[in-house]
Amino acid sequence: MEGSMKAVVKTQPGPGAEMKEVEIPKPGPNQVLVKVKTTSICGSDYHIYSWNKWAENNVNIPQIMGHELAGDVVEVGENVSLVKVGDFVSAETHIICGHCYQCKTGQYHICVNTKILGVHTDGVFADYAVVDASNIWKNDSSILPEYASIQEPLGNAIDTIRAGNVSAKNILITGAGPAGLLSIPVAKAFGASQVIVSEPNDYRRELSKEIGADHVINPIEESLEDLVNDTTGGIGVDFVAEMSGNPTAISQGLKQITPGGSMAILGLPAEEVKLDLTEDLIFKGVNLIGITGREMFKTWYIARRLLKENMIDLEPIITHRFPLEDFNKGMELMKSGNCGKIILLP
Amino acid sequence: MEGSMKAVVKTQPGPGAEMKEVEIPKPGPNQVLVKVKTTSICGSDYHIYSWNKWAENNVNIPQIMGHELAGDVVEVGENVSLVKVGDFVSAETHIICGHCYQCKTGQYHICVNTKILGVHTDGVFADYAVVDASNIWKNDSSILPEYASIQEPLGNAIDTIRAGNVSAKNILITGAGPAGLLSIPVAKAFGASQVIVSEPNDYRRELSKEIGADHVINPIEESLEDLVNDTTGGIGVDFVAEMSGNPTAISQGLKQITPGGSMAILGLPAEEVKLDLTEDLIFKGVNLIGITGREMFKTWYIARRLLKENMIDLEPIITHRFPLEDFNKGMELMKSGNCGKIILLP
Amino acid sequence: MEGSMKAVVKTQPGPGAEMKEVEIPKPGPNQVLVKVKTTSICGSDYHIYSWNKWAENNVNIPQIMGHELAGDVVEVGENVSLVKVGDFVSAETHIICGHCYQCKTGQYHICVNTKILGVHTDGVFADYAVVDASNIWKNDSSILPEYASIQEPLGNAIDTIRAGNVSAKNILITGAGPAGLLSIPVAKAFGASQVIVSEPNDYRRELSKEIGADHVINPIEESLEDLVNDTTGGIGVDFVAEMSGNPTAISQGLKQITPGGSMAILGLPAEEVKLDLTEDLIFKGVNLIGITGREMFKTWYIARRLLKENMIDLEPIITHRFPLEDFNKGMELMKSGNCGKIILLP
Amino acid sequence: MEGSMKAVVKTQPGPGAEMKEVEIPKPGPNQVLVKVKTTSICGSDYHIYSWNKWAENNVNIPQIMGHELAGDVVEVGENVSLVKVGDFVSAETHIICGHCYQCKTGQYHICVNTKILGVHTDGVFADYAVVDASNIWKNDSSILPEYASIQEPLGNAIDTIRAGNVSAKNILITGAGPAGLLSIPVAKAFGASQVIVSEPNDYRRELSKEIGADHVINPIEESLEDLVNDTTGGIGVDFVAEMSGNPTAISQGLKQITPGGSMAILGLPAEEVKLDLTEDLIFKGVNLIGITGREMFKTWYIARRLLKENMIDLEPIITHRFPLEDFNKGMELMKSGNCGKIILLP
Repeated sequence: MEGSMKAVVKTQPGPGAEMKEVEIPKPGPNQVLVKVKTTSICGSDYHIYSWNKWAENNVNIPQIMGHELAGDVVEVGENVSLVKVGDFVSAETHIICGHCYQCKTGQYHICVNTKILGVHTDGVFADYAVVDASNIWKNDSSILPEYASIQEPLGNAIDTIRAGNVSAKNILITGAGPAGLLSIPVAKAFGASQVIVSEPNDYRRELSKEIGADHVINPIEESLEDLVNDTTGGIGVDFVAEMSGNPTAISQGLKQITPGGSMAILGLPAEEVKLDLTEDLIFKGVNLIGITGREMFKTWYIARRLLKENMIDLEPIITHRFPLEDFNKGMELMKSGNCGKIILLP
Repeated sequence: MEGSMKAVVKTQPGPGAEMKEVEIPKPGPNQVLVKVKTTSICGSDYHIYSWNKWAENNVNIPQIMGHELAGDVVEVGENVSLVKVGDFVSAETHIICGHCYQCKTGQYHICVNTKILGVHTDGVFADYAVVDASNIWKNDSSILPEYASIQEPLGNAIDTIRAGNVSAKNILITGAGPAGLLSIPVAKAFGASQVIVSEPNDYRRELSKEIGADHVINPIEESLEDLVNDTTGGIGVDFVAEMSGNPTAISQGLKQITPGGSMAILGLPAEEVKLDLTEDLIFKGVNLIGITGREMFKTWYIARRLLKENMIDLEPIITHRFPLEDFNKGMELMKSGNCGKIILLP
Repeated sequence: MEGSMKAVVKTQPGPGAEMKEVEIPKPGPNQVLVKVKTTSICGSDYHIYSWNKWAENNVNIPQIMGHELAGDVVEVGENVSLVKVGDFVSAETHIICGHCYQCKTGQYHICVNTKILGVHTDGVFADYAVVDASNIWKNDSSILPEYASIQEPLGNAIDTIRAGNVSAKNILITGAGPAGLLSIPVAKAFGASQVIVSEPNDYRRELSKEIGADHVINPIEESLEDLVNDTTGGIGVDFVAEMSGNPTAISQGLKQITPGGSMAILGLPAEEVKLDLTEDLIFKGVNLIGITGREMFKTWYIARRLLKENMIDLEPIITHRFPLEDFNKGMELMKSGNCGKIILLP
Repeated sequence: MEGSMKAVVKTQPGPGAEMKEVEIPKPGPNQVLVKVKTTSICGSDYHIYSWNKWAENNVNIPQIMGHELAGDVVEVGENVSLVKVGDFVSAETHIICGHCYQCKTGQYHICVNTKILGVHTDGVFADYAVVDASNIWKNDSSILPEYASIQEPLGNAIDTIRAGNVSAKNILITGAGPAGLLSIPVAKAFGASQVIVSEPNDYRRELSKEIGADHVINPIEESLEDLVNDTTGGIGVDFVAEMSGNPTAISQGLKQITPGGSMAILGLPAEEVKLDLTEDLIFKGVNLIGITGREMFKTWYIARRLLKENMIDLEPIITHRFPLEDFNKGMELMKSGNCGKIILLP
């Protein structure tokens, strides 16, 4: 594929990004070129856009942003045999080494040499994107491109909720940003008895309620402990899915767990977190489980089944759609918190 | 049983305890009276002796101290049918309610209404002790009374090590107090490949080496990270057993874990602990597991097998033996840290 | 409670049973007397009624039949403190010893000295029934007595389905008798992607479809293998819940499992079963899991949550209701297979 | 590498094999050439040699036999970067597709398109052997070539024993052929309390005792049930490792398991096996676990640690060493059963 394309490029070490005309990239021998149909914005895209500490330490400039996508393969490298031109695909975004201890024992999602699409390489907020063939996921044709694009963050939600083995359990989700929102229908689909969502932002709390949370609470204004006691008969929740990265939410969430329960943490605290381990973890025999990425490719099979069998509905979670050119509008919404998932259409 | 007996009694809200002559207690209808052959000192006994914050909040005065014992049943309550006079026994020390959510689902060790022998009731540093029949463990006759007494803290070590599923794993034990020391032979018996012990106290570090630790280190003077890297080929340890309750040890231990590994915490920090959850738990997909008590009575069966089949040797871990009258000497040794398990003989 | 009551009594070593007037039983010191509101028929009741080999070997005559019930406590024994007169209750039917290896390690459902209510003791097809206080389950007041009575067999279905950890899995249920039927809504509630039911009886196959099975098949007339291949993209099912006890169903079910999958067996084959372990279990790395009873009392909490939170609907599974006097009609229906759960009302 | 080499070649569809002079094979672009230092005989080699049903259905003729090896890499294909000339290596023998459901979810050992080195491709009973680079395992330099060659079947033993989570458990091993023998030190290293070995062959039973079995029995002449009862206090074994493929051993082993226990089966029955599932699996809540291959490459790391840390001793299990030319002697010994592992040296 020759010619140029439009792309959202991070060009400066500071807030913002630019829509630019750049050359269509060439896939290497083990890569494929995808014509992007749909992309979606992740929290980490906003961190790169707003240029926080983490972005500063991890992102090289200039670089095309974005990593959530769905599209069609239009070109394949010479060694690629399992992906074909015309395949409707999305991408696993962890680019792994294949030879570390974790990779050799099947724990790809925690490869010690992980690179991330759109973080350490050129991304997908563009007309075309190059993806390693080994990272390609072939979508089921029945799944809409917008939903296919969201499978990647959906995978984060799936792995977090799976860690709680939630069937017939009462659970608490702390934080209803995009990942937290996605975890609500996943938890309900997997048979959680009651899903409580703790979230200070009014828009997201309302949305949580609409998409199936049994109880929502603003933990700053009301007592989370009282709500948990009332809804669980004083037992406490069996599981907390921590999706906020907020130290107070983590510490507070841990206190709501019944002895023998667990918390999975996907949200990334920007600072050290103080925990009362003695009372909240040790005496209660509680497990605290770190979650990163998505189990490769177990999680993608699960996402496919959830979507194909209509076990979850992503429609109400997609609150905004913009042409790719209007990416700034999407980023502003991410900043405000008044959104669910935002779709960008090249 | 009529008459009086000697007992170590906590009589004052402050440091110390007294050897007193008191009446031999009467077992209730569901209790038994044990003629104590051997007792041993636990860290919590020293906390009661030295009257720390926790003791102040939990212990009523006057009360007989101690909870680790072995002895013979000399009298049984009227409803007791499964325990007989003459049985050689020890005691599970968690006195549970039997009707909370945790108890009704078999998680007795985390009963929300747990009382502890010798903490919330009269204990066993005495000639005789009353124990609930449901807490009695019948010892295998081949096990020496001194070892039988130590089965209770051994159970803490067993549950901590079991949480790591340590066979063929490289593990780190932080803290070589009595519980940490006991966990060394348990880890080796269960097939840990390499056991690294991190402990600042010279006496305990030396003892750790003698009883089977593959590597020992004073983490204040040397680099734990370097030792872990050297001994694991740069991979990190698969599991940490945290036995110290020291916040620095917890935070430092967490950093030594290879992605996908885990840490079980038995040691009780006296204050909140600051953790870098993002780097040390979330990105690494690490599990942090709270351990309390002993799985009832699974752990006792395991202790019995370890001792009966000579899979572990407790002899070198018992560093001191005193007549019960000399309990002050034992408590002073506990304070210094220059001891393993200390036996008190009534 | 003085006086007489009506009861369905097994009086002869052969087919049939009699409605008789008998004395209201007296609860022992650790028992309670329940005024029965609702009972339901289990497959084992029919085995006793028809007097098969198993019944002959296990049941003493004369004995009151039945074990599934809901009712109100009207009298309690002198040692009973946790159950009160007026409590709305059902009963766990495994009467356990409390002191075998399994009981001491929390595996009550496989106690080696298990007795079963209505099999080894007088049962509940009567106006009143005596139940050990330790077997009493206090029902949530929001649950209808008919559903409360069915919680016991529902527990069998729950434990079978839980063994498959079915969220986002494609599963096969072999056999749609009462336990098989109950497992359909449980599997859907726990997030099974697709539930295939294999059942030769037309009535039960139709009912399976009505209550939520995604695909049903008569395995005698059509190819189960073809259906599994078509619906799973040639992968095979992840899990089989075997509810029939039919040797052919077991062997055939095992062949439908994708490598790495599992089968849980609740159905009881009356004879030895021939299996191709090499191809169907070993080369595929498949697990075969025996299920008996219900995890005590974990499963009851799950049943409560499923019913209280309206996660499952038992209404369509209850196909017939009779006054207790008409128990013969219920037994005839059980024989024909043209029923779901049958309620008997004293 | 040009020239010719000697190799043990299966040339005829019938018993036997021939030592022949053949061309040194050329590695493909993703393969390496290994100079073979040591090989060892597996049971499946004997099946090919004696040309049983399975061999007839799976092996193409002519083909070089053998799959267990240790050697040095002397040539690498053009795409191979992670393996270097001079590396001291062994080989994982499952050649997998990488793209089936099992492979994409990390379950490589049960790839549905598995080919096996020396079964479906030319093997390693030769001076040189070609191996896919992705199947190469780099040996720790401290491990002797003879032991390195045995790591592959050791992996079978490891995975079987790991399935039982054997620490502090009483276990039964049925069958003391090479895989059964290897499982004895693995079980002891992982903390099995008591290892009982059931084996009719006198030589192998004696050898079992020598290498660490706590109890051995000829199940044809003595009562296995009595021995299990005597050694487990009437409880039964917690786990059975089935290494014989003998239907009677499987059925008999299942009966020795305490309720809640499990059996892992590695031995391959040549015919269908009749099991009393009701009494031996369902009522006891027992799990039956199929084991095939070795978890890739988790198991190799474990084998390395067992050998490197001297946790097991393979020396007494190697009962015979022959020059490769004398492979017929090795095969005759395999037939007689009067051997442990047999080494063939090119």
